[in-house]
Amino acid sequence: MTTPVKRRIVILAEGKLDVFSAKTAAGVIRYRGDEVVGLLDRTHAGQPLEGFLGVGRGIPIVSELRELDAVKPDMLLIGIAPSGGQLPPSWRRLIVQAIERGMEIVSGLHAMLGDDPEFAELARKHGVRIWDVRRPPEDIPIGLGRARNMAARTVLTVGSDCNIGKKIGAIEMTEECRRRGRDAVFVPTGQTGVMITGRGLAIDRVISDFVAGAAESLVLAEQGHDWIFVEGQGGIFHPSFSGVTLALMHGSCPKAMVLCHQPTRRFLRHTQIPIPPLREIVAIHEALMRPIQVSRVVGVALNCCDLTDEQAGAEVKRVEQGLQLPVTDVIRFGAAPLVDALERYFETPSDPASGFAPSLSLRGPERPP
Amino acid sequence: MTTPVKRRIVILAEGKLDVFSAKTAAGVIRYRGDEVVGLLDRTHAGQPLEGFLGVGRGIPIVSELRELDAVKPDMLLIGIAPSGGQLPPSWRRLIVQAIERGMEIVSGLHAMLGDDPEFAELARKHGVRIWDVRRPPEDIPIGLGRARNMAARTVLTVGSDCNIGKKIGAIEMTEECRRRGRDAVFVPTGQTGVMITGRGLAIDRVISDFVAGAAESLVLAEQGHDWIFVEGQGGIFHPSFSGVTLALMHGSCPKAMVLCHQPTRRFLRHTQIPIPPLREIVAIHEALMRPIQVSRVVGVALNCCDLTDEQAGAEVKRVEQGLQLPVTDVIRFGAAPLVDALERYFETPSDPASGFAPSLSLRGPERPP
Repeated sequence: MTTPVKRRIVILAEGKLDVFSAKTAAGVIRYRGDEVVGLLDRTHAGQPLEGFLGVGRGIPIVSELRELDAVKPDMLLIGIAPSGGQLPPSWRRLIVQAIERGMEIVSGLHAMLGDDPEFAELARKHGVRIWDVRRPPEDIPIGLGRARNMAARTVLTVGSDCNIGKKIGAIEMTEECRRRGRDAVFVPTGQTGVMITGRGLAIDRVISDFVAGAAESLVLAEQGHDWIFVEGQGGIFHPSFSGVTLALMHGSCPKAMVLCHQPTRRFLRHTQIPIPPLREIVAIHEALMRPIQVSRVVGVALNCCDLTDEQAGAEVKRVEQGLQLPVTDVIRFGAAPLVDALERYFETPSDPASGFAPSLSLRGPERPP
Repeated sequence: MTTPVKRRIVILAEGKLDVFSAKTAAGVIRYRGDEVVGLLDRTHAGQPLEGFLGVGRGIPIVSELRELDAVKPDMLLIGIAPSGGQLPPSWRRLIVQAIERGMEIVSGLHAMLGDDPEFAELARKHGVRIWDVRRPPEDIPIGLGRARNMAARTVLTVGSDCNIGKKIGAIEMTEECRRRGRDAVFVPTGQTGVMITGRGLAIDRVISDFVAGAAESLVLAEQGHDWIFVEGQGGIFHPSFSGVTLALMHGSCPKAMVLCHQPTRRFLRHTQIPIPPLREIVAIHEALMRPIQVSRVVGVALNCCDLTDEQAGAEVKRVEQGLQLPVTDVIRFGAAPLVDALERYFETPSDPASGFAPSLSLRGPERPP
């Protein structure tokens, strides 16, 4: 995957150091870990980072920026995405200190730090850039299904819930394709993906009328690549983010989808709403795409971060048998089974005997035709 | 329906005088017609307005504002919603003239006229308000399904496409309920509805992460009313606006939906994508709501504006037989059949023998369970 120029990054994760709250931190450490020189979190300072995030061995957790002065960090990256995206008041002091040290500020909050008078003034004074990753570009067009029928093999990761592995799934499939010598590109659509690659667009910050258009533009910009893996967002049944999910589906017009799921998760995040059965989730995604462009869920990426190897293996088998689709945990078992399935799918897209069973579909036998 | 203080309105519809392009004009004339003193459109000046919009008999179409000076208009209302919502350059002169006459400017464009330096300066000078209807309020929360299980009978209009009658359907059902002595309220969610009622919120202008939250807030604000009719937006299969549609569904958590459709329309607006069969559209809406809150499509509102009475009657019968649901054209035949159906539905919500057949549902018989 293309990554930006090497930096010396400190990640701010004050008080929220778990793999879900600090998913931006976890993503940046996973894919740009060699650039991360430390993590700011007073409540866990001195403890081993990989115990919290599953990644980041050897990266120190510190209480104050000055503890890292010796390694001359040049970027403070906000590693947490609080729901609603506002700036917790306690972070102000830390951001001020970073600017005063001449560090670039990278933020994915909805609240635009560059528009904050104190930060803006201080940044000017110290010649520092504040990069608000979620600031949408001007002049995004309305989506019009222009990404339909592109030559590329477009694949979108979708999820049974938000915050479940859609970004990692897309990145790992991209990497696996490249290992096979394919021309594959990853299209980030969220703040963490943009921070990892230095490209893309956080579509959840776009005005709702233009989200499909933003997704469409991102995909069309990659025309010419053989494989385009688009990072999914939200969850089709999640009452907070389902609109973003559907706009991304209809804007990016994937020819195939990969469903991401965490076997131990019972409820949609931040709600008391049970996650529906996977069969229903597969069916709704395929049904929603059908009138725009036929698209199948061709595999499942399980997030087994809270399971043992043995449990993870058992879950993979269970879901495989239930859905009759290839299943893997991309972190633990690799993305090869998904890329295998995608290659088979794209080689014989319209052949019903290709091993791709007819999709689960919308049917209404209870009412007369 | 509650309407704001009476005004003397001129509608700007320059060059776009048809019932779809000028839907804001048509909506405002339909429900605030007694306040409209004229319509600005050089290309159709002098012609009878109702020939273009089906409403507005007696309202003059003029080329220049000065032709209306005698009736002292006090509001210029932009009556067109160009796709993308930018300001056509030719309108600038007309808006300047209106401000110079001391007229309030009401706009539903995405481009915020109040932020335009020339308009803003001029408005200050003339003590005139520029009301950008689409400017979202600050501090919209994230949606969390908080409108689930409200006591009210919440009804959302949904559509086979955008621009097909969802606002009018919701207003007409509200009015019909009130005629029956019910405590019913209309919740506008788009610019025209907001212009008609002076309340509500244009949710398509909200940042996508917050659209469901905006819809949720609008509905929760009406707690205490017996009936809440929410204006739908977009179309669940429309590649431009489907995200707004789904966010509105999951945010407003309707207990029932009414499907709006135009029998003569074959393709999703501005696209070459055929409108799917109504059965499929009913099924997808019910399937998308199921995990959040069970919600049924209990009737269909047909927009027969381009059919004769006889043709309209035949279409109503045809769709009724096909879907086994009550159907009407609310403008031609009234909303009573829909309100009848809703009353029956809410009186016996969980009784399978109530006459409400099991919904079309997501089923996947082709794959093993």
